[in-house]
Amino acid sequence: MKNIFLLIIAASICFAQSHPNIMLTKKEVRIIRRDLEKYPLFIKTYSKVKQQIDEAIKQPIEVPVPIDAAGNTHERHKQNAINMQQAGMLYQITQDEKYAKYVRDLFLLYADLYPTLKKHPAATSNSPGRLFWQSLNEYVWAVNTTQAYDCIYEYLNATERKKIEENIFRIMAEFFSVEHAKILDLIHNHGTWSCAAVGMIGMALNDKDLIEKSLYGTKKDKKGGFLKQLETLFSPDGFYTEGNYYARYALMPFYAYANALNNHMPELKIFNYHDSILKKGLYTALQMTYVNGEFIPINDAAKGKDYLSPEMISTIDIAYNQYGKDDTLLGIADKQKSVVLGEAGLLVAQSLSQKKEFPKFKYISAEYSDGAKGNEGGVGVLRFGKPEDQSLVLMKYTGHGLSHGHYDKLSMLYYDNGLEVLQDYGFARFVNIEPKYGGRYLPENKSFAMQTVAHNTVTVDEKSDFDGKESVSEKYHSNKHFFDCKNSDFQIMSAKDTNAYKGVKMQRTVALLNDKLFVQPLVIDIFKVNSNEEHQYDMPYYYMGHFLKTNINYTPYTIEKKILNKNNGYQHLWLEAEGKGNDDGIFHFSWMMPKRYYTLTCSADSNTKILFTRIGGSDPNFNLRNEPAVMFRYKGKSNVFANVIEPHGSFDLVTENSIDSEGKIKSVKVIGSNDEATVIEINTNKNVGWILMITNQESSNNSKHSIEFSNKKFEWTGNYSLIKSN
Amino acid sequence: MKNIFLLIIAASICFAQSHPNIMLTKKEVRIIRRDLEKYPLFIKTYSKVKQQIDEAIKQPIEVPVPIDAAGNTHERHKQNAINMQQAGMLYQITQDEKYAKYVRDLFLLYADLYPTLKKHPAATSNSPGRLFWQSLNEYVWAVNTTQAYDCIYEYLNATERKKIEENIFRIMAEFFSVEHAKILDLIHNHGTWSCAAVGMIGMALNDKDLIEKSLYGTKKDKKGGFLKQLETLFSPDGFYTEGNYYARYALMPFYAYANALNNHMPELKIFNYHDSILKKGLYTALQMTYVNGEFIPINDAAKGKDYLSPEMISTIDIAYNQYGKDDTLLGIADKQKSVVLGEAGLLVAQSLSQKKEFPKFKYISAEYSDGAKGNEGGVGVLRFGKPEDQSLVLMKYTGHGLSHGHYDKLSMLYYDNGLEVLQDYGFARFVNIEPKYGGRYLPENKSFAMQTVAHNTVTVDEKSDFDGKESVSEKYHSNKHFFDCKNSDFQIMSAKDTNAYKGVKMQRTVALLNDKLFVQPLVIDIFKVNSNEEHQYDMPYYYMGHFLKTNINYTPYTIEKKILNKNNGYQHLWLEAEGKGNDDGIFHFSWMMPKRYYTLTCSADSNTKILFTRIGGSDPNFNLRNEPAVMFRYKGKSNVFANVIEPHGSFDLVTENSIDSEGKIKSVKVIGSNDEATVIEINTNKNVGWILMITNQESSNNSKHSIEFSNKKFEWTGNYSLIKSN
Repeated sequence: MKNIFLLIIAASICFAQSHPNIMLTKKEVRIIRRDLEKYPLFIKTYSKVKQQIDEAIKQPIEVPVPIDAAGNTHERHKQNAINMQQAGMLYQITQDEKYAKYVRDLFLLYADLYPTLKKHPAATSNSPGRLFWQSLNEYVWAVNTTQAYDCIYEYLNATERKKIEENIFRIMAEFFSVEHAKILDLIHNHGTWSCAAVGMIGMALNDKDLIEKSLYGTKKDKKGGFLKQLETLFSPDGFYTEGNYYARYALMPFYAYANALNNHMPELKIFNYHDSILKKGLYTALQMTYVNGEFIPINDAAKGKDYLSPEMISTIDIAYNQYGKDDTLLGIADKQKSVVLGEAGLLVAQSLSQKKEFPKFKYISAEYSDGAKGNEGGVGVLRFGKPEDQSLVLMKYTGHGLSHGHYDKLSMLYYDNGLEVLQDYGFARFVNIEPKYGGRYLPENKSFAMQTVAHNTVTVDEKSDFDGKESVSEKYHSNKHFFDCKNSDFQIMSAKDTNAYKGVKMQRTVALLNDKLFVQPLVIDIFKVNSNEEHQYDMPYYYMGHFLKTNINYTPYTIEKKILNKNNGYQHLWLEAEGKGNDDGIFHFSWMMPKRYYTLTCSADSNTKILFTRIGGSDPNFNLRNEPAVMFRYKGKSNVFANVIEPHGSFDLVTENSIDSEGKIKSVKVIGSNDEATVIEINTNKNVGWILMITNQESSNNSKHSIEFSNKKFEWTGNYSLIKSN
Repeated sequence: MKNIFLLIIAASICFAQSHPNIMLTKKEVRIIRRDLEKYPLFIKTYSKVKQQIDEAIKQPIEVPVPIDAAGNTHERHKQNAINMQQAGMLYQITQDEKYAKYVRDLFLLYADLYPTLKKHPAATSNSPGRLFWQSLNEYVWAVNTTQAYDCIYEYLNATERKKIEENIFRIMAEFFSVEHAKILDLIHNHGTWSCAAVGMIGMALNDKDLIEKSLYGTKKDKKGGFLKQLETLFSPDGFYTEGNYYARYALMPFYAYANALNNHMPELKIFNYHDSILKKGLYTALQMTYVNGEFIPINDAAKGKDYLSPEMISTIDIAYNQYGKDDTLLGIADKQKSVVLGEAGLLVAQSLSQKKEFPKFKYISAEYSDGAKGNEGGVGVLRFGKPEDQSLVLMKYTGHGLSHGHYDKLSMLYYDNGLEVLQDYGFARFVNIEPKYGGRYLPENKSFAMQTVAHNTVTVDEKSDFDGKESVSEKYHSNKHFFDCKNSDFQIMSAKDTNAYKGVKMQRTVALLNDKLFVQPLVIDIFKVNSNEEHQYDMPYYYMGHFLKTNINYTPYTIEKKILNKNNGYQHLWLEAEGKGNDDGIFHFSWMMPKRYYTLTCSADSNTKILFTRIGGSDPNFNLRNEPAVMFRYKGKSNVFANVIEPHGSFDLVTENSIDSEGKIKSVKVIGSNDEATVIEINTNKNVGWILMITNQESSNNSKHSIEFSNKKFEWTGNYSLIKSN
């Protein structure tokens, strides 16, 4: 230990003139001082931070012994780190020593406390921290405080530096890179935070070894570490494998550490690394938001989390600075109402001050591959309409997505008119809310939110994909079949899965069909299941809003109700009513959102059971949201669930005006389906209809198809064809 | 019939020069033409109306045979009347004959259709209409179209006038004032609309008899009619007896007809009538909104309906014009983004254009009496805080409130931080939404929404107040006890009811207690029930948001759940869990709203059962919203439910920051309660506490009280006393 200490002191002296040099550089500080008062958003951000820190400095400082997982001591340490980082920056900008003193005083208390800490008393994860219940929060703490240390380095005397480095950062570095080496080497957002933390401690301590470990893994064999993560956590299209909520979270350490590396090791050209993967990662994450800015909550995710979250502020600003000043980012920055206190933030604030209107972020229909090599399925997103009223359908046919992945192969989500219409439950967790299991993941996350039946997809025999085994699910992925969004009035995508259930082939085809008959496009959803054995196929739609009516007779459970079954998520579903399709195979189901009506029309006939369910069974602590679904249940070898969802009419609470509460779709019929193709007929009550033909086999864009169903011949070229009749 | 016709023609000719003379006057039209392009909001409203009508004129006109109660034919007739009224005004303003022609063409089609109509095919109410399922909508239609007729009167030739008057308005006048005379004479919002319709038809036909019937009742005996309604539908404080949702609705015909009367019979001085009751009616209705503008939904009411609704636009503008240009109305007018196309609208638009900021509408704490003489109980409203974050508690101790009244004596509502926290369910109805029982009141309105157990008040022996009999309930009212809001840091109100349940005396005392310990005031809620017989007392809180935790052991019904009982609303409540208070009499129950936490602390001990319920049982058509409540159940002769609701901490989804998810209230204890007084002790875990003493008997402000409980003497002056200890 003594040797290391001497080395650090030497290094400190050696490079003393170069502090700050992690997130801020001396040059940057000069620019900030010069332009501090020039651009309104920078002034606003700076004033707000200054006000907050000035206020914090007035309070007695607290460095409590850690107790809880999401209560006051947790929040205190989290906030202290943020305050220290900001006060450090303020010291650099203002040169007012009160900020440096505040940071120093906190550091010295931490230097007293930290060496005394063992495993956190509320630790439950397999990666416990010391200040925090999980090491993750400790990485975040280090990312913030190393910056603070860097900023006040020159203010500290040698004794202070020694105490801080030895009692905090050295111990942490050891804790992170040796004791928790496995996490640093992990391909996972925890790994990214660990790399950033260890690398930035390396920069703070001027310890090349730590930086190298952070870049190449603890064994420096490039099997783990920051670069490997850049190569493998994102697909070549920039899709982040854990899902969009965690993409948002991971982008922060990715960008922050990249920024620090760019200052420290410009020769790495980290922002160009792996075909500018950080750029793609950000843009794809933004494409994974709905027009209201909310991240589409596939896999573990908090509902409603959007791109205004603080992590996205620094990321957007740095990207704007590093990747050619793309003005379509400015609209988002403007909504964020804050910038990072650095050169990138200045630049964004400057650009914002020079423009009155910014080009909107350009949402597109697109397919994003999954997997490091882009060959592990993907996500398809179809959009139609202006931001004020956009329809979006997303189909998920990715790999598993690591520990935060859900068993939701071929799941579908639907947004319209600014709101979720067919929802993904997201995760079962109240982040940071102490009374709900310390803010940790709730047991219902595994038992419900992750299970297949919690998603808008097919569950076979009441078991989840891969029987809910992550280790198995990680080995497989669904497959793209075709994707075509060239014609905005008819966009279509199709994907398959043959591994989630042994002996069952699944193919889902989802399309947006725009026609002047409708206020927004129809969603066509064709889910084909096929097996040589008998199975039970359950397909729920978790619709949002209030049920209006259906055309079948059903039995409502009005005085007593029971859960659907005992396992795999079914225990969390109340059965509220059940019935079966009519003999004519025409099933309608209508509900309303605050401002629009929706009608689902399905080909379900009397062989299909129809269940009305509601989330909330087997939930003794009331951890779940009580939301409804309509579920189709088919028993047999093969089936095609052919559905059309029609948005229609409008309701206005202000005027109490209701328009077109009845839909126009009369029927959806499966004309035929075999291994080769599926043909669907959609009819309206306005003498307009469509025939949709899709291939079920590999097909090129110009291959011709001809098939006969019910003595009728259907011919087309390519993967699909849509014919309108009237 | 012929004689009448001749008379009309004569009258028409006689007064031809004076059209328009109902809502618009010739003089007003001249002013509008002159100032048309002067004020932005008027220009905006005018352009929008013009654009809509220009668009409507391009469409084929439709006057369909009536079929549905809320479907397309209903909406068509409703919209036609609005279009005709607006096109009529546009004709007056622009003098462009295309508008007059449009109105005329529609009138002539109605003149063909109307005489052929019998009772509407979807009629279910006891006041069926012909064009509409209920006569109410027909009154509204007439209020609009008489104005239209007035505006194009001079454009029409004698044959056209004859046909329109004879085939529409004469038949209508007969239908309204003879066949439905009972409604015109009714003290009810339907009566108001009928009076306005009949009176305005009288103005259109220049028929004094109709105007007199509208003013004094069909028998002209002043027992019914417009003036009687002004005297009896509002209390002297301006509280509208049916409740706030219907106040909003009734204010429109009240103000519109008053405005027409002011033009036609200025000698009536209708706006000064009955101590300017129309002014009080509007201001009290506005006080009956929360700071977000939403009407507090006591009695039958749509949730979320606010003062932006079109009825409130003309009302606000006319009030601004008639009652001395009160600038605190301008902020509301500004949010409405529209004005009435008349002199009043011009004036508001002018005032808005001259000011950059408007004084906000001044929300106050106040008590409003109910009953024509102001001696039938009332409503108490306590408010604390700025509009951005205001706490509001309301207690209802009124009379029944006519056919839209609920059995909710001494019910309490609580709003905070911009949202409902303890809700009133409102009505069970999807207004104008055809698939939900034609948009009519649903059966669940009577069976649930009106019942006592649907409200935050005490239900005795599982029966509703007055056994749910309107005729009985109409005879009684609750009584004020005391109300004091002088000290904004401690506001308190108390009321009693001794009639709702035979042999049971009920007294509720509700207070807002502000202290620096809390983010917003505590709500103190003391509900005393007292009888010589054994009863079961149930007291629910319909909390909004998500349950977090409680300190009692409870039995959750996780795999099967049942309804609470069979009648009086209980059949609509699922029992989700049950338990009982702890021996120490300290019960905590916490939940969260999107941005804040709430903890209810109750004195309930092991003699009190605690039920977790959720609305939605016995609801085969899924008409109800599935919302939770926590219910206290006490069996015995007498009890005091002493509760404190503490708002605490904050949650921010953007940053995922959680602060103070634990409340500070440690206990609430009933030190003693008898016929004379109740003494309550509230303690925090911060060594701060309060003793609250309240009188249970009539008491003046300076009468002295002395009482001994548990060998302790409590002394105070007046109705209450609060003592802080620390």
